[in-house]
Amino acid sequence: MTRTTHLQRASLTLLLTGLLCGPANAASTPLDAKASDPQVMGWMQGFPPAADKQITFSNYLRFPHTRWAFSHIRELLPTTTVGRAGTAVSVLPQAPREDIDALEFQLADGTKMTWAQSLNANYTDGILVLHRGKVVYERYFGALQADRPHMAFSVTKSFIGTLAAMLVAEGVLDAQASVAIYVPELADSGFGNASVRQVMDMTTGIRYSETYSDPSAEIWEYSRAGNLIPRPADYSGATSLYAFLQKVQAEGQHGDAFAYKTVNSDVLAWVVQRASGTSFADLLEQRIWGKLGAEQDAYIVVDQVGTQFAGGGMNASLRDMARFGEAMRNNGRFNGQQIVPEAVVADIRTGGDPAKFAGAGCATLPGWSYRNMWWVASEEQGMFAARGIHGQTIYVDPKAEMVIARFASNPVAANGANDPVSLPAYAALANYLNAR
Amino acid sequence: MTRTTHLQRASLTLLLTGLLCGPANAASTPLDAKASDPQVMGWMQGFPPAADKQITFSNYLRFPHTRWAFSHIRELLPTTTVGRAGTAVSVLPQAPREDIDALEFQLADGTKMTWAQSLNANYTDGILVLHRGKVVYERYFGALQADRPHMAFSVTKSFIGTLAAMLVAEGVLDAQASVAIYVPELADSGFGNASVRQVMDMTTGIRYSETYSDPSAEIWEYSRAGNLIPRPADYSGATSLYAFLQKVQAEGQHGDAFAYKTVNSDVLAWVVQRASGTSFADLLEQRIWGKLGAEQDAYIVVDQVGTQFAGGGMNASLRDMARFGEAMRNNGRFNGQQIVPEAVVADIRTGGDPAKFAGAGCATLPGWSYRNMWWVASEEQGMFAARGIHGQTIYVDPKAEMVIARFASNPVAANGANDPVSLPAYAALANYLNAR
Repeated sequence: MTRTTHLQRASLTLLLTGLLCGPANAASTPLDAKASDPQVMGWMQGFPPAADKQITFSNYLRFPHTRWAFSHIRELLPTTTVGRAGTAVSVLPQAPREDIDALEFQLADGTKMTWAQSLNANYTDGILVLHRGKVVYERYFGALQADRPHMAFSVTKSFIGTLAAMLVAEGVLDAQASVAIYVPELADSGFGNASVRQVMDMTTGIRYSETYSDPSAEIWEYSRAGNLIPRPADYSGATSLYAFLQKVQAEGQHGDAFAYKTVNSDVLAWVVQRASGTSFADLLEQRIWGKLGAEQDAYIVVDQVGTQFAGGGMNASLRDMARFGEAMRNNGRFNGQQIVPEAVVADIRTGGDPAKFAGAGCATLPGWSYRNMWWVASEEQGMFAARGIHGQTIYVDPKAEMVIARFASNPVAANGANDPVSLPAYAALANYLNAR
Repeated sequence: MTRTTHLQRASLTLLLTGLLCGPANAASTPLDAKASDPQVMGWMQGFPPAADKQITFSNYLRFPHTRWAFSHIRELLPTTTVGRAGTAVSVLPQAPREDIDALEFQLADGTKMTWAQSLNANYTDGILVLHRGKVVYERYFGALQADRPHMAFSVTKSFIGTLAAMLVAEGVLDAQASVAIYVPELADSGFGNASVRQVMDMTTGIRYSETYSDPSAEIWEYSRAGNLIPRPADYSGATSLYAFLQKVQAEGQHGDAFAYKTVNSDVLAWVVQRASGTSFADLLEQRIWGKLGAEQDAYIVVDQVGTQFAGGGMNASLRDMARFGEAMRNNGRFNGQQIVPEAVVADIRTGGDPAKFAGAGCATLPGWSYRNMWWVASEEQGMFAARGIHGQTIYVDPKAEMVIARFASNPVAANGANDPVSLPAYAALANYLNAR
């Protein structure tokens, strides 16, 4: 039995990226958050763990293995460091609010739920809420601890998007230039004549499916190319992320509509790295991570030839994610420094074209748009967010002076499974914090 | 072409561990240190690197690829963190001595050489000398930088040996008990009736060869078992380090003689983890790394089921290795704390039985012995050292009040290749620093 057969037989409900707008189609009812707690499951206990309690490269993406794996990615895959750069840790002032757990709110269908219940409903591994810059709430569940990086999945995209926007603001990167100017290897691909701006806003017209239930969907080969899942013994596909990108074909018209496709983020990273002469990880360390006063080094998953997976490979501690969110809430300023230029944050907050977003099927995000790889609510609402599959988020609500960082391991690989609970919970908390 | 064929065709002169006493048998003259500098070679430059400049899991252990790979192990293999535990970095006072480079010394054959020349002769990637606790010399070459962990290879063994000795001192671990008491799975192996002490001092009688030139040597299967080198498509051997250990057979009598065999270190780690209920990495973080005021997290290579490779998988920054050496020079005290008990350091410094060591073929180490996985010179000389293949070392010379930490990537997988230059260089430096 090859590793792949093994994989194919498994009820893989998820993968590393994407389907951020898709509906929640759980094939069967999975274990709930408490029953799937890695301690309860007994994953990876003892030396060595029992055979049926081992989490390996061959099974780590299967729920409930994911509840352990997402907090231990570096033990399963090769990774590269995003260093904290030896700086003093920036203080996050504490103002805990024990009353938050009991906060009651209502779902769209009228169901009532408390904040504490919502955390279980969404398989939360960790959540931290900053209000006016102070930590009002911080909890860890399952395998996650304060000092342990967790897989951020597509939250990664907002980092490469921010870095790209910073380079555009500096004139190092021309957003109107076509991708092929920076990456000639992509000239004959569907990306070749797309503009950098179209890639940044995911309005490229390309043939690429992230429908996990379809075994022929491109997301599968992309994941095998990136060495993120096992390859069959007779594998003859692409053996690196960038080799795959060169094979992506055009479909439709660039610029017409937003379509959430992870490959755009890696095309953007390729462009950014060529324009800056610096790797994504080094750029992130130099421009952002090394300035935040981060508590922990972050890290990024790499493929077989060292390509850093910008579509979803970043891992970081929850507190450090909250620090970045707080920087974004404060128009780029944090830890005594202007880390991200004000104009770049303003550009993100202005958002993309909601009309181009409306057709993408993001039923939980009415009136939102996508800009520089951030999800942006209407101007009236004002929120913006980094979002990763299985419930990862950095959620910034400037009007409520609130930032939420969350890691999770929801069994369903679509934020359609989290949003119906999470977004009302966040909105209720925003109201609650500001009413008191 | 499978990965293995690829590997077998290559002139693999090295592997991850061992042969610490063997002679230097370089098959041909390799590139010298300057010609093999990773920058000069152009390894892993650009996005992506050119095909012939890529370093991957399939080729990383080939010289000169090693000169890049040993400073980038986490990008090639799964690893686990040994955290610095958020402590303040301990200050290493500076007292640079620019005159050291010109220090001239003599090899056994009468050849004269300067200190600076000796660094190139041994393919030094980084070296730091502490004298009376101050940094008198610190240099980085090739791919290594101050903030970058480097593969420590068998220097790792001295960490598990020290931790084991600490647990023995606390009564948590009984050195006289047989291995099978702690690890019943090893009862039927060659290790089963060996005492923990015999494992700690590598005087077990087992059938295990680390002769790299012999394709049937056990070191090859051990490396495949640990997922440290590619496995052939039809591989049917052990798929974890501990699965392999259970297959090791007895040969000769336990306790008779020192014989350097890496498997002892992983048996010891297995015993230590069972006795303490804590993983090697966590124990190292709790007992040592988190107390040193380390600058960087360290990390340890893990196998397919998460087993931490105690025989040679630790990676750390040079300065942090020097901090640990300085703690050992000061009888376990550093950074305002007694990190390793005085009695444990004293036990290491007393050494093992030189008569049992004499027959092991360590021609460069006359009068030395092996204790708690440290190499120990005669009482008159007083030095003790952690030593890793390709020239890694933490070299402690208490009489000279000197500690040397060195990382290197010598193409020859035997310290017989380094010692004829390194040991006279270290001795000359000890004299020089104390004469002035």
